[in-house]
Amino acid sequence: MTDILPVRPLIERTWAEDARQRGPAFEAHLGGKIETMSMRAVSGAADLALAYTPGVAAVCTAINLEPGLVDVYTGRGNTVAIVTDGTAVLGLGNIGPAAALPVMEGKSQLFRRFGGINAVPICLATTDVDAIVETVIRIAPGFGGIHLEDISAPRCFEIEARLIEALDVPVYHDDQHGTAVVTLAALRNASIVVDKELSTLRVAISGAGASGIAVARLLLDAGVTDITLGDTEGLIGPARSGLTQVKETIRATTNPSGLNGDFATALVGADVFIGVSGARITESEIANMANDAIVFALANPEPEIHPSVASRHAAVVATGRSDFPNQINNLLCFPGLFRGVLDARAGSVSSAMKLAAADALTALVPRPAANRIVPNAFDPGVADAVASAVAAAV
Amino acid sequence: MTDILPVRPLIERTWAEDARQRGPAFEAHLGGKIETMSMRAVSGAADLALAYTPGVAAVCTAINLEPGLVDVYTGRGNTVAIVTDGTAVLGLGNIGPAAALPVMEGKSQLFRRFGGINAVPICLATTDVDAIVETVIRIAPGFGGIHLEDISAPRCFEIEARLIEALDVPVYHDDQHGTAVVTLAALRNASIVVDKELSTLRVAISGAGASGIAVARLLLDAGVTDITLGDTEGLIGPARSGLTQVKETIRATTNPSGLNGDFATALVGADVFIGVSGARITESEIANMANDAIVFALANPEPEIHPSVASRHAAVVATGRSDFPNQINNLLCFPGLFRGVLDARAGSVSSAMKLAAADALTALVPRPAANRIVPNAFDPGVADAVASAVAAAV
Repeated sequence: MTDILPVRPLIERTWAEDARQRGPAFEAHLGGKIETMSMRAVSGAADLALAYTPGVAAVCTAINLEPGLVDVYTGRGNTVAIVTDGTAVLGLGNIGPAAALPVMEGKSQLFRRFGGINAVPICLATTDVDAIVETVIRIAPGFGGIHLEDISAPRCFEIEARLIEALDVPVYHDDQHGTAVVTLAALRNASIVVDKELSTLRVAISGAGASGIAVARLLLDAGVTDITLGDTEGLIGPARSGLTQVKETIRATTNPSGLNGDFATALVGADVFIGVSGARITESEIANMANDAIVFALANPEPEIHPSVASRHAAVVATGRSDFPNQINNLLCFPGLFRGVLDARAGSVSSAMKLAAADALTALVPRPAANRIVPNAFDPGVADAVASAVAAAV
Repeated sequence: MTDILPVRPLIERTWAEDARQRGPAFEAHLGGKIETMSMRAVSGAADLALAYTPGVAAVCTAINLEPGLVDVYTGRGNTVAIVTDGTAVLGLGNIGPAAALPVMEGKSQLFRRFGGINAVPICLATTDVDAIVETVIRIAPGFGGIHLEDISAPRCFEIEARLIEALDVPVYHDDQHGTAVVTLAALRNASIVVDKELSTLRVAISGAGASGIAVARLLLDAGVTDITLGDTEGLIGPARSGLTQVKETIRATTNPSGLNGDFATALVGADVFIGVSGARITESEIANMANDAIVFALANPEPEIHPSVASRHAAVVATGRSDFPNQINNLLCFPGLFRGVLDARAGSVSSAMKLAAADALTALVPRPAANRIVPNAFDPGVADAVASAVAAAV
């Protein structure tokens, strides 16, 4: 609440001109984007005696005797660690933990702004799966949830699975589940627009990394029956060998037609294209899709196909960008989802909670249209609706 | 800056009566004491495009190319991790990492209030020295400094030494150096009050844990030549065997008279008693000290001897408590010291910086008197003075 010493002015005095020359994004980052604040004034000895010694000793003792009180008399139950190793940051790839920090600070701002949640960046100086799992387990006592961010596949799958197993607080990898939840929400409304049943859709997913796998898994949980994934080697079908464990597993429940070869093969007659790879898709490949096709070209900043080109052949087009209609944005999911699991004191994030979050987002667009299949992040009540739905699904 | 969802009301609705019954300290802890806030408004898509994608990508790339920019365009350079394993919390001992969290949140409030610093509690689910060192190294990329807190001796010495060796940011164990700096500052002014030279003082320290060892080391650095320490086995003298490495080392530079036996032996004729153990000292033992004796009975909440009893024989008496004159309080040191090392981008906390911090505190009391040898924590300018002195000593 108070801030005695002028820190930002110190940095601004030296670096304001550097930031100005580099541009507005740098000016918005000068001195950082988040700060740890006191929730109550510390104005004198009386405040100190309550918040610190001797008053704090009784609180510590109470928590020691009754561990659940930690979520009442500390901020733990409203505090999430944003954990990254900097290996898959935005479209930039493996830029390391320090260079990833601006993204984590940004995520923390969004957790606060949309979820009312304390989110603390934890940038790890290791990319070893065992070391990451071990480290997160060791720092876990101070956090009510673990938000994994920008960790590359396939390591992210094992890290998440092992942390879920080891910890009794929710563990959630946003690049997987945020994308999956919002994609499912968008697909439900897009299906309404084109008047097709979710269960009858033929879906082709370009990308079998964190997002592609998670989207496929959640669509299967939602009742989609015909999904085919492709990666840089082509379709994940019967002819492939040397697949990772995760891809082996997803192959067993996808690609019911047993397609092999180029990704374009899967697009012939497909109802839905979902791009989470950045691999280019041509206009003619989109033209080969079924009537009233749905195209989600989600790569950022360059969608797999430009939406104006895709629109020539598809009935509904979405991207990950804010400058086109239908932005499929994780921000629609994670603040509300964590708000819900924290309020409900859920010990994990279940498939039912993710489906509930998607349903809540779908319902926020009561009359879906080709250019309006998801809410906007700044629409009032988005996080509240997701939080309530998730808490009810616990 | 904004907080959309009402989190505290949720907890207060359920727990306000519990807190009221438990007392005002619990009411001051309801829902926690700190929060992670956004430093800038996120009001619409334009803000988002600067603070988050796509704007953030250029900032990440710049830091990746020029690593020093992380302290300009993120909050790292003004952010400290408060690391504990919960083994030596206040006078409560080994209560574990979760029950220690209220103390760490309180410390974070004080970092903010007095130092303008972001301080993030990291409560570790391990007490193993190797594991603690390894974990702190792994989480270090997001922090501009490491503040170790309430880690028991002798593990704290090895943990601090290894982290100083491994990291290029300041590492500081408050239970050692905060106590040492403020004790030295108080001792300088107490010496002026009784008109004795620091270098001629005979000092007896009860306690050879984190505080006792650090006080002895800093007093030696400040020019005190005759210091004798005692622990639960008696004086650390020639007759002792089976000492820890740290105690072996301190023995080599203390106890010039080669005293053995009970701690009372060291008090006979001593000019200064410093208690950091909680072990009882009797009135007659104080009476045996030199004329114009100085008594610092710093154990909390129960001083080694009650100040009103000590005052019958000593010229200057100090405690760790706020309800007696001369409170020797770490709070006088750590916010300003960290402000100084962070502003100066110091890579470590040197003995020269600690001595400078002590000198600054000494100088804040221009006319010391028996009941006024240290400033009050709420005196204006304390942290500023310490910060400036420390930065100048870098």
